Amino acid sequence: MVIKPNGYAETPCGVRAHEEPEVSLARLDISKLTIRLTDAPKPLPDLRTLVFGVSFSDHMATASFHPATGWSTPEIKPYAPLTLDPASSCLQYGCNVFEGMKAYLGPDSKVRLFRPELNMRRLERSVERLALPPIDGDAVLELIKRLVQIEKRWIPKLSGYSFYLRPTVIGTRAALGPVASDQADLYIIACPGGSYWSHPASLLAVSDTVRAWPGGTGGHKIGGNYSPGFLPQREASAHGYNQVLWLFGEEQRVMEAGAMNVFVVVRRADGDGLDVLTPPLDGTILPGVTRASCLELAADPTFHAHISIDGSIEGTTLYPTERVFTLSDLERWSTSGDLVEFLCVGTAAVVVAVHDIGFDGRVVVRVPTYPNDPNGLGPVGRALREQILAVQEGRKEYKGWGVVCE
Amino acid sequence: MVIKPNGYAETPCGVRAHEEPEVSLARLDISKLTIRLTDAPKPLPDLRTLVFGVSFSDHMATASFHPATGWSTPEIKPYAPLTLDPASSCLQYGCNVFEGMKAYLGPDSKVRLFRPELNMRRLERSVERLALPPIDGDAVLELIKRLVQIEKRWIPKLSGYSFYLRPTVIGTRAALGPVASDQADLYIIACPGGSYWSHPASLLAVSDTVRAWPGGTGGHKIGGNYSPGFLPQREASAHGYNQVLWLFGEEQRVMEAGAMNVFVVVRRADGDGLDVLTPPLDGTILPGVTRASCLELAADPTFHAHISIDGSIEGTTLYPTERVFTLSDLERWSTSGDLVEFLCVGTAAVVVAVHDIGFDGRVVVRVPTYPNDPNGLGPVGRALREQILAVQEGRKEYKGWGVVCE
Repeated sequence: MVIKPNGYAETPCGVRAHEEPEVSLARLDISKLTIRLTDAPKPLPDLRTLVFGVSFSDHMATASFHPATGWSTPEIKPYAPLTLDPASSCLQYGCNVFEGMKAYLGPDSKVRLFRPELNMRRLERSVERLALPPIDGDAVLELIKRLVQIEKRWIPKLSGYSFYLRPTVIGTRAALGPVASDQADLYIIACPGGSYWSHPASLLAVSDTVRAWPGGTGGHKIGGNYSPGFLPQREASAHGYNQVLWLFGEEQRVMEAGAMNVFVVVRRADGDGLDVLTPPLDGTILPGVTRASCLELAADPTFHAHISIDGSIEGTTLYPTERVFTLSDLERWSTSGDLVEFLCVGTAAVVVAVHDIGFDGRVVVRVPTYPNDPNGLGPVGRALREQILAVQEGRKEYKGWGVVCE
Repeated sequence: MVIKPNGYAETPCGVRAHEEPEVSLARLDISKLTIRLTDAPKPLPDLRTLVFGVSFSDHMATASFHPATGWSTPEIKPYAPLTLDPASSCLQYGCNVFEGMKAYLGPDSKVRLFRPELNMRRLERSVERLALPPIDGDAVLELIKRLVQIEKRWIPKLSGYSFYLRPTVIGTRAALGPVASDQADLYIIACPGGSYWSHPASLLAVSDTVRAWPGGTGGHKIGGNYSPGFLPQREASAHGYNQVLWLFGEEQRVMEAGAMNVFVVVRRADGDGLDVLTPPLDGTILPGVTRASCLELAADPTFHAHISIDGSIEGTTLYPTERVFTLSDLERWSTSGDLVEFLCVGTAAVVVAVHDIGFDGRVVVRVPTYPNDPNGLGPVGRALREQILAVQEGRKEYKGWGVVCE
């Protein structure tokens, strides 16, 4: 396999054309993996008091790309700080992409990832969008599996808990010319955790700040998509809301909530079942793995049998559709009584209910509440969460979504 | 002075309100600066072969913010790699802001910065936009001045060359919850350099990729604004163009070129002087220091005497205006013969001429060329570049723009 290094103009005035030297560079070769285990294993954290994303496991996986040689020999080694030149493009120009995945310990003591190939294809696309050195997602997945095997003692045995994985690629070119980084580090870190979030949320809709736009990077998992949301998030918290609901444009299209995809469940006009709507992938919406899985489940007639609404026992037909909807659509459905559920979905949160949405100083959308569900989820959200968790936790097999780490 | 730390929700579900403990935190106090000089000074690079932004000077300035204690004692120390946790928010979520500045050695052997207070106010705003711990730009400027004094031997004595400074603030919170970083590092690195770019440029206009959007971060100097432009930049290079010309919206508004602000110089319909137009600061345009300086110079009647057009010796009146213009405006002005100049301006490039603009596979705008000028600049661009360089290099005093490092 020949990987072409990123050609780039060191001095934009001096180099007129993109130069791609046809040299053979080393690919990311997991068969050469070197493993150096820690001699000081950490104590496992107490799951009851665990905060998401702060207690990292003993080891990390790493590899680096150099334009002259290609990918280095991958390594699993003790979790340790990175040493980076202060001019590195990951620190100067936001050359950072990542993925979020979870490994679950099943009742059969096997460890499973959830549809990891979707994360790997997205990682490849994110890397390409930022003009970072190309990466082979299949090799990254092998590396992830090896790390998970080594860290098996870190994977919680408690239902609802998992081992969160964070594959990251950063540009490490140490130069201030604002051009593509021809050097990169791949690393994978991991930490045990529960659901990032499980009880019903309130959202503050914002329209003065936008998360993404046509022709931007909102459809990729790029570090720089996230920090611009921290100030609105803080303002939402200060007003008593859990998360921001991102709107877009004069028509106030509903986009995402915090760093999660959204779904709305609406009673259909003809009384036949429920519409399950989510914004389409027009480049402004992250193509979430949980989002895709919810759409596929909602399209599956065998899944519909799990949906009990208004006390019915024969199930409810769902009509999943990727389509634009607006804040005023939500207000209208809320007023008419057709709004059944509003859901946030994502790898960290899985499926979370929303109970109200504020905008411009007042609550504009009240979503029906479901106090009998432990997570406050309605019939569709509860079934989606249960099905996805059952596959993730290895309690159920569905379309090969659960991938055993072997 | 009391600085409030960044309150943030460690678990968005657990913390409902923004918490701002009223503790007194250390401010960035330059009177406590510690200096540790290198015992292995580097050889100075050969200016004739110098590539921009790769040969860093002997020292760097640093300070770090911790939510429990505030800003650490600032330090000037040998240039060295940073040690960062792999989970740091600067590597995961694009919590990176920076500034670009230049120090020039004057004929009086004094070292001058150019309007550094504008950079410092912009740095403060960038830090606020990403919800990083607040920073006192005046203290940062003092630190920059001290670094410049220590690195004086690195400042080129050659006209057109300078000492490029890169103040950077990165979020260093080592946790994966996507919330504001309550920890940060400030550092300032520097390198000698010539004009990043001086000969006339060709631009490839792009409308499918969009640099900035209303409600986005395009009006701030944030790392994540830059890497999304690297792929279009590479494509522009592959087609023989130097830089990307960023368009916006269906009307194809002209925004910026690469990482530079743009100006267009157009003959006025009434034959009285020249319009000097640049896009307005509506949040999508970086408020560049060179941009602001060009606008102010163009509004100054004493500056107009320097503009000789069509062989006139009495100068030419300029009408600087911040207003929207489109690619089709440029095409129209080019066709009618009213287009006099198209300029890119920025700290690294100062003022650069554009000779043609391509779009959709062909050259759509041809700008008059000025082969008699060493940089190919027309009358307005040449006068702007000369005046700004004269102030930067300490050959001329103007409105206090040149600030001596003492």
